[in-house]
Amino acid sequence: MAFDAIETPFGKSDKIIGGAGTYIAWSASNFTKPIKQISVVGGDFPKKQLRALEERGVVVEGVQIKENEKTFFWSGRYHMDMNTRDTLETQLNVLGTFEPVVPDSYQDCEFLMLGNLAPSVQISVIRQLKKRPKLIVMDTMNFWMEIALTDLKELLTMIDVLMVNDSEARELSREYSLVKAANKILTMGPKFLIIKKGEHGALLFHNNHVFFAPELPLEEVFDPTGAGDTFAGGFIGHIAKTKDISFENMKTAIIVGSAMASFCVEKFGIQRLTEIGKTDIDARLAEFVQLVNFDIDLV
Amino acid sequence: MAFDAIETPFGKSDKIIGGAGTYIAWSASNFTKPIKQISVVGGDFPKKQLRALEERGVVVEGVQIKENEKTFFWSGRYHMDMNTRDTLETQLNVLGTFEPVVPDSYQDCEFLMLGNLAPSVQISVIRQLKKRPKLIVMDTMNFWMEIALTDLKELLTMIDVLMVNDSEARELSREYSLVKAANKILTMGPKFLIIKKGEHGALLFHNNHVFFAPELPLEEVFDPTGAGDTFAGGFIGHIAKTKDISFENMKTAIIVGSAMASFCVEKFGIQRLTEIGKTDIDARLAEFVQLVNFDIDLV
Repeated sequence: MAFDAIETPFGKSDKIIGGAGTYIAWSASNFTKPIKQISVVGGDFPKKQLRALEERGVVVEGVQIKENEKTFFWSGRYHMDMNTRDTLETQLNVLGTFEPVVPDSYQDCEFLMLGNLAPSVQISVIRQLKKRPKLIVMDTMNFWMEIALTDLKELLTMIDVLMVNDSEARELSREYSLVKAANKILTMGPKFLIIKKGEHGALLFHNNHVFFAPELPLEEVFDPTGAGDTFAGGFIGHIAKTKDISFENMKTAIIVGSAMASFCVEKFGIQRLTEIGKTDIDARLAEFVQLVNFDIDLV
Repeated sequence: MAFDAIETPFGKSDKIIGGAGTYIAWSASNFTKPIKQISVVGGDFPKKQLRALEERGVVVEGVQIKENEKTFFWSGRYHMDMNTRDTLETQLNVLGTFEPVVPDSYQDCEFLMLGNLAPSVQISVIRQLKKRPKLIVMDTMNFWMEIALTDLKELLTMIDVLMVNDSEARELSREYSLVKAANKILTMGPKFLIIKKGEHGALLFHNNHVFFAPELPLEEVFDPTGAGDTFAGGFIGHIAKTKDISFENMKTAIIVGSAMASFCVEKFGIQRLTEIGKTDIDARLAEFVQLVNFDIDLV
């Protein structure tokens, strides 16, 4: 949970609420409750943001508040294609020394979503759980491949589903073809691999199966920040709601995640996620069905 | 119909048979016959290539053979991403003075596919047809937007379906968002717009409807040359076979086109297209169904 300041070709935000955990919780809380959040913020993080999450069924007992420190801050500028960005500033602040503590009341969790953070922090959460969750999903990024590859490789053997984007999949596997990259990564631990391709959709790999979910073509992508986290939140939210960890149900979960991400990019930060409800999500899911649905008689 | 010499990160071809018309005919002839081909070649174009097409039900009466001239030649080199390429050499040869002649026996054609060529040549073919085809589909490229925009704009008012790639759609519309680009292009004449995104699939726009067809994730894209033309051939082949020009059937036609394109890229030039038959195509179409098929209950 963090502060972001974002510039896009279409506008510039103030310092706004962000962070993987924030997006995941806002997104997943449309589908399941309670959600048991683990994170760290500084005294500058607005308490009303935590209250807003609690009202949606998010338990914040595991969110450490370090009153005399500052919340993580990131600022960045997106290029015209909205798929690439430059980091302008990163202030680690409370994240620099973050040691997650899993409260006793969290020990019953069946589904674990590890947002992008240092692999050692992600490992620590898994190690504190007395009973292994039914499904452990993990997001990461190229930064950790460069500075914490040993931890990351250990973590990969502990999880079920890895989410990365296309360039991260290439970096981790050292393969250019995404099919070859997927085959290699699936030998490194995870049983399922989701490769996010930004506006070009997402791929799910499992054994020799592959599923593709498109992104909805939008008139305007206003701010892509948090889209991947919002996708993750929709994915794990649907899985937790249905308690079904089959490949078939993961396909549906990816469509749900894609639908949630398509809302996220419509406004700065979490704004759009705070506005939508069941009717909006249903309508968006119906658009996805229309988008890819076709009839075919084999020739 | 042309000669190509191709370099990719994976290999280099000799001077091989290529050209939009060649790929379209090889692809479409899996679905419908007769196909009535209009093109021009020089005396250096192997007669056995024309015989091979005739054996597949392609009528070549409209293919002019200029015995004392040379066939169009293109050579290019693909970058690692296989989506971008540099032209190394272009020899217009017979294409420099090409005036298409539509034989009387072609006047009954119901479906017209205009492969990428000068808009004035494409217009000439339409003008020679006494009865307007049920559907006119046209492919073009950025080159014509730069040197023949007036002709191109006139042509757009004469056709039903335009096929372009994403950068061409952006250039023609002067819009970055593909949704905005599509909306603008649909005011310029065509009732249907297909935007090809290479390995990222294809979009079909019509009124306020949009359909997305993915590309099959392949271990190796060996040579993308002709993939767009092969797509076009599968598209028009399916339309001509079914004689159904509805939006719903165009969705299926795009999947068929995508399946055909996925074969094309597996080997240099038309090689792979000469090897496949109904069983291969059926199996590939079944893979597409698996790739995008999902169940969803609205949340």
